[in-house]
Amino acid sequence: MLSMSQRYPSALLENAVNELASLPGIGRKTALRLALYMLRRDMNYTESFASALIALRRDVKYCKVCHNICDDELCPICANPNRDHSLLCVVENVKEVMAIENTGQFRGVYHVLGGVISPMDGIGPADLRIDSLVRRVAEGGVREVILALSTTMEGDTTNFFIYRKLSGYDVKVSVIARGVSIGDEIEYADEVTLGRSIVNRTAFSLTNNP
Amino acid sequence: MLSMSQRYPSALLENAVNELASLPGIGRKTALRLALYMLRRDMNYTESFASALIALRRDVKYCKVCHNICDDELCPICANPNRDHSLLCVVENVKEVMAIENTGQFRGVYHVLGGVISPMDGIGPADLRIDSLVRRVAEGGVREVILALSTTMEGDTTNFFIYRKLSGYDVKVSVIARGVSIGDEIEYADEVTLGRSIVNRTAFSLTNNP
Repeated sequence: MLSMSQRYPSALLENAVNELASLPGIGRKTALRLALYMLRRDMNYTESFASALIALRRDVKYCKVCHNICDDELCPICANPNRDHSLLCVVENVKEVMAIENTGQFRGVYHVLGGVISPMDGIGPADLRIDSLVRRVAEGGVREVILALSTTMEGDTTNFFIYRKLSGYDVKVSVIARGVSIGDEIEYADEVTLGRSIVNRTAFSLTNNP
Repeated sequence: MLSMSQRYPSALLENAVNELASLPGIGRKTALRLALYMLRRDMNYTESFASALIALRRDVKYCKVCHNICDDELCPICANPNRDHSLLCVVENVKEVMAIENTGQFRGVYHVLGGVISPMDGIGPADLRIDSLVRRVAEGGVREVILALSTTMEGDTTNFFIYRKLSGYDVKVSVIARGVSIGDEIEYADEVTLGRSIVNRTAFSLTNNP
């Protein structure tokens, strides 16, 4: 008869596999492959691997203005005087900040909510950085708030909640354009996206259309 | 203009992502997702994660008989008096030991080579535990050596090399059966496997055939 513990010839290996497999999207087979890979590399490799993760978790800071991950009081974007601080892009997380930064098309600043309103996951408005967004707007100097959240029910709910919260202030609230992806065939676009791209059509210009 | 370093708002984050992405099969997007996951968990999580990997790498031992990963001098299989120590199964790595153990069909012991002969990767016979395999056989008490390596050119080369090395000793050398997988449709089996399964057909018996 085989028990779970008999399958691993070493408790150290089993423990390492358990930890690796606790990461999201990493199964036990992949975890074993990664653990064995570490055994083939020298001790320095595992040490610098482990210390990088510990250092991130222990020393990480969040920008006191936009809540983006950073190493100082302010993130590099908020600290940059060349950015347009009157243009705020509201995103869910640091991943979206990085994706938008990679486009090179946005010169404003961000506000990282830390998630979206999701009653199913027990995440309410109070768990997000919505109050500090309203405070940034209330303090003045913000011309436009661009909502760049996912088009899910949770994202739409959060958009609506923020829109209502900001309705008393003199600020323009916009959402990023939704439409058929550049390079996509019209016939394969889903109906909702295609429908919205027709309703929200923009004036043809030689510079904006590739 | 965007430089690589501008993309990450934090050097700590970038460093952690670099380390995670250095693992085989983990891309930069997955690495970022894993790093952000660690930030959502408490400090204890990252600490026990890191220390399990360090402990594995620092304290891992290899069985002095079969070279399997273990926590003591001998692996649990070599230390087990109820196993048949005259039946040696030669495998590439600990993963194959675990796979064969999981079948519950093998009561012999193992010999872990640590790889296969692969001139392309600069791995010669001297880099593998072939000498100690020959020594185990030379010391007597081994009745049969079962070769359970991959059916690749490297695996076949290694099989042949071991076969020649053991040819002077009074030991039976066998290879695991290759054939159509149980549950597979005959029409979809590849020709090489199907051809070999006909050549190496076995006598029909009511107990062996499901």
